[in-house]
Amino acid sequence: MPVLVMKFGGTSVADLDRIKNAAEKVRREVERGYDVIVIVSAMSGKTNELVGWVTQTSHLYDAREYDAVVSSGENVTAGLMALTLQEMDVPARSWQGWQVPLKTSAVHAAARIEEIPRDNLDAKFAEGMKVAVVAGFQGIAPDGRITTLGRGGSDTTAVAFAAAFDAERCDIYTDVDGVYTTDPRIEDKARKLDKIAFEEMLELASLGAKVLQTRSVELAMRYKVRLRVLSSFEETGDNSGTLVCDEEEIMESNVVSGVAYVRDEAKMTLISVADRPGIAAAIFGPLAEAGVNVDMIIQNISEEGRTDMTFSCPVDQVARAEAAVNAAKEAGEINFHGLVADTDVAKVSVVGIGMRSHAGVASKMFKALSNEGINIKVITTSEIKVSVLIERKYMELAVQALHDAFELEKA
Amino acid sequence: MPVLVMKFGGTSVADLDRIKNAAEKVRREVERGYDVIVIVSAMSGKTNELVGWVTQTSHLYDAREYDAVVSSGENVTAGLMALTLQEMDVPARSWQGWQVPLKTSAVHAAARIEEIPRDNLDAKFAEGMKVAVVAGFQGIAPDGRITTLGRGGSDTTAVAFAAAFDAERCDIYTDVDGVYTTDPRIEDKARKLDKIAFEEMLELASLGAKVLQTRSVELAMRYKVRLRVLSSFEETGDNSGTLVCDEEEIMESNVVSGVAYVRDEAKMTLISVADRPGIAAAIFGPLAEAGVNVDMIIQNISEEGRTDMTFSCPVDQVARAEAAVNAAKEAGEINFHGLVADTDVAKVSVVGIGMRSHAGVASKMFKALSNEGINIKVITTSEIKVSVLIERKYMELAVQALHDAFELEKA
Repeated sequence: MPVLVMKFGGTSVADLDRIKNAAEKVRREVERGYDVIVIVSAMSGKTNELVGWVTQTSHLYDAREYDAVVSSGENVTAGLMALTLQEMDVPARSWQGWQVPLKTSAVHAAARIEEIPRDNLDAKFAEGMKVAVVAGFQGIAPDGRITTLGRGGSDTTAVAFAAAFDAERCDIYTDVDGVYTTDPRIEDKARKLDKIAFEEMLELASLGAKVLQTRSVELAMRYKVRLRVLSSFEETGDNSGTLVCDEEEIMESNVVSGVAYVRDEAKMTLISVADRPGIAAAIFGPLAEAGVNVDMIIQNISEEGRTDMTFSCPVDQVARAEAAVNAAKEAGEINFHGLVADTDVAKVSVVGIGMRSHAGVASKMFKALSNEGINIKVITTSEIKVSVLIERKYMELAVQALHDAFELEKA
Repeated sequence: MPVLVMKFGGTSVADLDRIKNAAEKVRREVERGYDVIVIVSAMSGKTNELVGWVTQTSHLYDAREYDAVVSSGENVTAGLMALTLQEMDVPARSWQGWQVPLKTSAVHAAARIEEIPRDNLDAKFAEGMKVAVVAGFQGIAPDGRITTLGRGGSDTTAVAFAAAFDAERCDIYTDVDGVYTTDPRIEDKARKLDKIAFEEMLELASLGAKVLQTRSVELAMRYKVRLRVLSSFEETGDNSGTLVCDEEEIMESNVVSGVAYVRDEAKMTLISVADRPGIAAAIFGPLAEAGVNVDMIIQNISEEGRTDMTFSCPVDQVARAEAAVNAAKEAGEINFHGLVADTDVAKVSVVGIGMRSHAGVASKMFKALSNEGINIKVITTSEIKVSVLIERKYMELAVQALHDAFELEKA
């Protein structure tokens, strides 16, 4: 039997009615001939409640106990989903992480999946089970204690099962109906994409399109798991949602697939830094240790042995970044004449695998922004992405202008 | 190290403050030199919520999924209790049933404990763990699925651990401060007992003193586990609560230890039943199949080959009992001339191991009731108990009169 993995997030299993609605979608896939592995999150709100109890009990909590407590939400949903399917005469049973077993590292609260042996589920599928409902987000450490996978853990669980069981596809049911060319709240001509390449999805995800967690897309890319994002709350069929897949499956892609943005960025410049080997490490080491998520890094042309070093980070990390570089200066590790923080910028990016073979994307982007009178403060590029920092007040305008310029409303 | 088992019920761990209060009691026992095994229930209300979801999802639910869902409540409390103890610098960790493992039969939702291997907990105690916080009410079936133990499961878990680990004592923390000579709401002279024998506790428990589940007392009696009932909500010390123990530990017991009652009983009489071998089985077989909890059974003197058969059962099972015996009559399995149901009776009992060696308890009881003008409808006796059925409106009066007659207010 071909295997299909279906994952339902917290809002998709928020109450018994929604669990029933999700189970109905599972039943249809069983009727179409699939053995189905369903991955469920906790009912929405439940995990937050459990996390709240843990953090109220202990500020520096033992992550092993955190995992034991927090994983219980998924167990409840898995059992209820199995019961709901049984009521529909679908042979189903629930599996907790340790029962499968989903083996992970011992890094509690942020464990990595190491192995999913197929034996137990395969044996039950062979006996007639049609659906294995697996509690997402959890596994078992080498010492037998329960682990959780951290942020995005349920999506990652789903992709890992799809890889382990050679699933035909991994369907991620969520509260949006797919991946769009840009945020429809900003650009009402935004169009849902039928397909998008893994690499593009990674750039869009990390740039703020919060449909799929980066980690699950990376895993899907590595194991070539075809990933589909679609809505729990609409009638869905074969062509619903957006398929995230290998670029070879995308026949004629647009040069640019989407426009992404990050609203609350800051641009920081260290003025007149001594330009010597190791200087970048001397600056960004302390920033990393301070937990600053540095995004873009630009080193300006060096003059007389000194250079300006610019980087961007989330605006709420500016104070931490300033403290870190000032401490490094006082410790004599780096030297600079001044530190300028511009907390009033946003990042806008165009993303597309077609860029690899088409020149002129960057210049078209700069021209579109220029036509709107938008000044570009910083530019960075990768193989499939061009990003700029601009004044925050122009962000929506820039997204709309770029969406138009690349004609993303057209399929 | 001597081992102590401490069990906290749902009201004792109902929120984070109460968990802290319970943990404080655990910490004190650790400081006194014990290795402690703590058994916790789910926060009060949680299990009912989970059971509600299961029964709303499926009327004839799969008990295996019921167990997977319902057991999650105890896992949450176990983790939170371990964290709370760690905050108090007590080395503690949580254990779910399958991690210990607490091995049970495969009878889901009503599993029997089969074995608790000591190796895992002993190894951790040897490494310096001072408290093992175990999720009560749950275990693991031979096939690796989660089981629950059914009604009274957490008390039973506690006693089973005490037996397996040769615990010095098993302390059951609850919302009452011990076992009383009778219900203090009926008789304000009721006195808390310092000690009570297992056999007496069994009679009191099954007669309505709902402090301990019968099943856990039976287990404690079999393995001679000293069981102490005491309050979570009071300062407790060495002599708090009531010790339920082997009668050898009770030096000078009163002839009568307590007066128990069951308010809502019914007395049913089958008039003129053919008195032949097998007739009792023919009557009580169908009643058992119909789920009627028959308590007393009295067969009157036979006249001319026919007899009257009287039994008692809870008043809310009368309709079911009538249907069962009438169906048996129609099927030709039994024959009787009439069926009289008296739904207006209560049962009052005096209980005491001292009765074994003291005559005259029954006559003293009957005299006390007679002095109050209370008519006795049915009498049954056992080695350590005399029970009567009386009109329900005299129940409180009877309890008070018997408490006085046997001078139970005196230690």
